Amino acid sequence: MSVTAAKGFTAAGIAAGIKENGNPDLALVVNNGPRRAAAGVFTSNRVKAAPVLWSEQVLKSGEVSAVVLNSGGANACTGPKGFQDTHATAEKVADTLQVNAAEVAVCSTGLIGVLLPMDKLLPGVETAAAQLSEHGGEKAAIAIKTTDTVHKTSVVTKDGWTVGGMAKGAGMLAPGLATMLVVLTTDAALDSDVLDKALRAATRTTFDRVDSDGCMSTNDTVLLLSSGASGITPEYEEFAEAVRQVCDDLGQQLIRDAEGASKDIKVEVINAATEDDAVEVGRSIARNNLLKCAIHGEDPNWGRVLSAIGTTKAAFEPDLLNVAINGVWVCKNGGVGEDRDKVDMRYREVHIVADLAAGSETATIWTNDLTADYVHENSAYSS
Amino acid sequence: MSVTAAKGFTAAGIAAGIKENGNPDLALVVNNGPRRAAAGVFTSNRVKAAPVLWSEQVLKSGEVSAVVLNSGGANACTGPKGFQDTHATAEKVADTLQVNAAEVAVCSTGLIGVLLPMDKLLPGVETAAAQLSEHGGEKAAIAIKTTDTVHKTSVVTKDGWTVGGMAKGAGMLAPGLATMLVVLTTDAALDSDVLDKALRAATRTTFDRVDSDGCMSTNDTVLLLSSGASGITPEYEEFAEAVRQVCDDLGQQLIRDAEGASKDIKVEVINAATEDDAVEVGRSIARNNLLKCAIHGEDPNWGRVLSAIGTTKAAFEPDLLNVAINGVWVCKNGGVGEDRDKVDMRYREVHIVADLAAGSETATIWTNDLTADYVHENSAYSS
Repeated sequence: MSVTAAKGFTAAGIAAGIKENGNPDLALVVNNGPRRAAAGVFTSNRVKAAPVLWSEQVLKSGEVSAVVLNSGGANACTGPKGFQDTHATAEKVADTLQVNAAEVAVCSTGLIGVLLPMDKLLPGVETAAAQLSEHGGEKAAIAIKTTDTVHKTSVVTKDGWTVGGMAKGAGMLAPGLATMLVVLTTDAALDSDVLDKALRAATRTTFDRVDSDGCMSTNDTVLLLSSGASGITPEYEEFAEAVRQVCDDLGQQLIRDAEGASKDIKVEVINAATEDDAVEVGRSIARNNLLKCAIHGEDPNWGRVLSAIGTTKAAFEPDLLNVAINGVWVCKNGGVGEDRDKVDMRYREVHIVADLAAGSETATIWTNDLTADYVHENSAYSS
Repeated sequence: MSVTAAKGFTAAGIAAGIKENGNPDLALVVNNGPRRAAAGVFTSNRVKAAPVLWSEQVLKSGEVSAVVLNSGGANACTGPKGFQDTHATAEKVADTLQVNAAEVAVCSTGLIGVLLPMDKLLPGVETAAAQLSEHGGEKAAIAIKTTDTVHKTSVVTKDGWTVGGMAKGAGMLAPGLATMLVVLTTDAALDSDVLDKALRAATRTTFDRVDSDGCMSTNDTVLLLSSGASGITPEYEEFAEAVRQVCDDLGQQLIRDAEGASKDIKVEVINAATEDDAVEVGRSIARNNLLKCAIHGEDPNWGRVLSAIGTTKAAFEPDLLNVAINGVWVCKNGGVGEDRDKVDMRYREVHIVADLAAGSETATIWTNDLTADYVHENSAYSS
């Protein structure tokens, strides 16, 4: 299903030879219309990969005819030659599909600081174009994997229209956005400004609140393409909620497949004075290595939650803080609460609630534990 | 040597039974004058342990007669009872030594969220007082260890006067200050305002730039006590430099003994527009888990350095960034530089230079690699 669940889209995923192990590494997603409306959200990292710089320009027109994605190389920190390669890739797609290169978005993922093997990538575009299909969404999702152990897709179907998508991402997963590539498609008939509004609203509370390892990538890209092929223009709220659901589902799939993780940790901050405070506190907790180690060891170490809260500028009084871990309020009023031995941490999902007792706002950040497997994977894999 | 290297001080370190394993856990440092001038710097964590709240008040007078330190329990997040325990500890020291309780600083380190065993701690104060000696500095340094594998002391002797000190700290090591207790002593004859100025200047560029694991403690304390017993009042600059040297040496000892670490990483940011920019970039690099894993794997992964720089607000142009690892400029002008295979990473110390090409300011942050041993120690040890 994936990006071809919505009508008006074809896709393909092939092995172009970019990856030395011969796994699929090139995906193509084509919008066959009648509309070509699109919106995009990109990494806020100031060191941006060449394909991000290119695609940001493409999205300014609000029109995207095709997206070409490669794994096996991020094309980041590759200088003018890297940008030329991205440009050449877009031109190749444009020539092959008979579309305008200025409407071809490019996404890359993999090792930073290495040029792409263009002698393999460009012929791969032709191979992929020849395999474009209304059933190609899954193959496309497979072709963008790097250290992902599974491919990620999600679909929400409403009254006559659909939002679907695919995502990749397993490491360098942190806000603004997570290290990931995401392509969403819809056959709802909408303009690019509506797509943009719905996409930003959705990513703000989904992908932007996935923070597996605190490391922000140079390549993060989320695209939303509308073909309008359903002929239906849904109400904004209904459409925005469908986009949010797909983003939330894909974000959860990223967390569940994070490199080396053994726990998925839901950090819910409640009773904050402002939503910004809630997010700041949630992120501080989610990024605390000592806490992440404790969770790995199934140790309900609430002292590390408090020490993380204490590093923020959020409104709170230390003596009023409460913390629950998997439903047990182990910290009450800034001190010892219920018996920590009551906390059951055997399951993969761990739920931490931090009550700031300072207002009524809330935010949820998702993260993972810190494990020896994470260290092993990221000291052995150059990415 | 340690805190008794300077004239006018006695110290002791004993096993009071706070630690279940019977290791030394209580230290006493006494200033026998003629002066009792003192200065202190404390954690900027807003969740502060009871002894920090107490000692901050004590230091306001600029006078400290004695410091009592315990390992085996941080007395943090322990509510009103925890503060009463700190107060009772200071009163016990005051009674035993016949000094004013308002001049007794208290420091604690160990597990957060657990009350101290006062039935063992208070008798321990008497035992320690009975063993006070001009040669007790080393025993005091041993008694404040937690997960430290070695005790840390440092001494600088100048023309007739001395600055010496001890430190503990191995985990939750991050700025503002590192998770650590430090007591410095001098027999130079100086007022508390001069001590304060010299101590803040020293910690700003030493302990505050030690960032082993990004986790800021609730208990960090650095104290500087002057007995004036040398009768000598040195020039401020000479004294400040001696304090800085002792702080720098102790900070280095903390990094070398950081939990689970196999590498000591010197992150030097050069050509920054401002010192604040240099520190922000240095910290961002030092806290990047992916980079810390790569260094553990002896992988000169400069792409992770650039992606960390890109998350900051510092002044720089991505295309002008340069990065050297152990003397090899692996990244030039934001792209591929010298051959990364030339980088020799076999030794414990790793030197990363990040050239922002945006000015002439510089800062150095020290950190450690991220290892499976760190994960193991912090998922198994509740602290």
